[in-house]
Amino acid sequence: MADREGCRGLGGPRPGGRSARVQASVHRAARALLARMDRAEVTIPLIAQEAGVTPSTIYRRWGELNELLADVAVERLRPDMVPVETGSGRGDLLAWAEQYAEEMSSGLGREMIRDVLAAEGADGPRRCCGYARQQIDLIAGRAEARGEAFPDIDKVLDRVIAPILFRILFDEALATEQVAGLVDCAFAAVERRAA
Amino acid sequence: MADREGCRGLGGPRPGGRSARVQASVHRAARALLARMDRAEVTIPLIAQEAGVTPSTIYRRWGELNELLADVAVERLRPDMVPVETGSGRGDLLAWAEQYAEEMSSGLGREMIRDVLAAEGADGPRRCCGYARQQIDLIAGRAEARGEAFPDIDKVLDRVIAPILFRILFDEALATEQVAGLVDCAFAAVERRAA
Repeated sequence: MADREGCRGLGGPRPGGRSARVQASVHRAARALLARMDRAEVTIPLIAQEAGVTPSTIYRRWGELNELLADVAVERLRPDMVPVETGSGRGDLLAWAEQYAEEMSSGLGREMIRDVLAAEGADGPRRCCGYARQQIDLIAGRAEARGEAFPDIDKVLDRVIAPILFRILFDEALATEQVAGLVDCAFAAVERRAA
Repeated sequence: MADREGCRGLGGPRPGGRSARVQASVHRAARALLARMDRAEVTIPLIAQEAGVTPSTIYRRWGELNELLADVAVERLRPDMVPVETGSGRGDLLAWAEQYAEEMSSGLGREMIRDVLAAEGADGPRRCCGYARQQIDLIAGRAEARGEAFPDIDKVLDRVIAPILFRILFDEALATEQVAGLVDCAFAAVERRAA
């Protein structure tokens, strides 16, 4: 599990608590080391030194390096902005999905996906999927408020997010222009329903 | 790379050659160890002992354990049968995709996907995608020979394979019954084109 002390829900530890401060400092240290050295050279003792905590603090909370790096990657994947408003649900989804595809297929994005998937039994992949769900849900809510039809979130996951990640992991990343075709496909069900 | 000696195309080393015999024996040893001990306990020296080769033979050819296990997983994912014939392209695709979804979401399937993705810079993911492509291509060829419309292979990858793997990796594996909806979606483009 990403957190052995069991004190965190989706939102992280109680803000401002000791546990939250330790986590923030360890995450910061890990990000700093990842930025300045090769991933294969990063170790728990190095992260501990950089963060000013003992290695055992890290072992106790994260268990092993893979778990910690997965946790750091998941935090980086947590959305830090509300999807851009373009005036329509389809436009919002397209803008958001294009940005998502670009970020995920970048070097840093690929490294984060890799780290998230590398931690066995951790909840990182599910949390990442949850973040995408939240953003799509927000776009869907705005569309609904404007009286527009919008596809089910699971359809958007299967038809837009899944191919973006599948191509990055198993084939060649899609070009940004190809994302529009995926969004069309997600909306096709809605349109047939409405017709 | 999966093979440092550079002697293999998609089809593996020259059958019957020394290199092919070493590879077969190392793969067999790795599979045997994976079957009887925990994955975290498997090491290159143990595999070498089981295979009756020196550890340096393995290091020279595969570089490191992750690469070897990825190679073993890719070999296991190589299709060993022709897709079942049901009388229609849609039926063939559905039968094949249901089996694919079942195999990949099993414990062994998940472990193989994990191993394939864990080897940095290796061509394993692409080879796996290539195997799926080959099978779908075969089904498409049979459909075409019968004069049926069949979706582009890339559409099938995006609309059928991608959601199956995405759900396994990031969410909850789809139930077998849900695969039919994905196949319908892949055929939707064809039907609109034909209408």
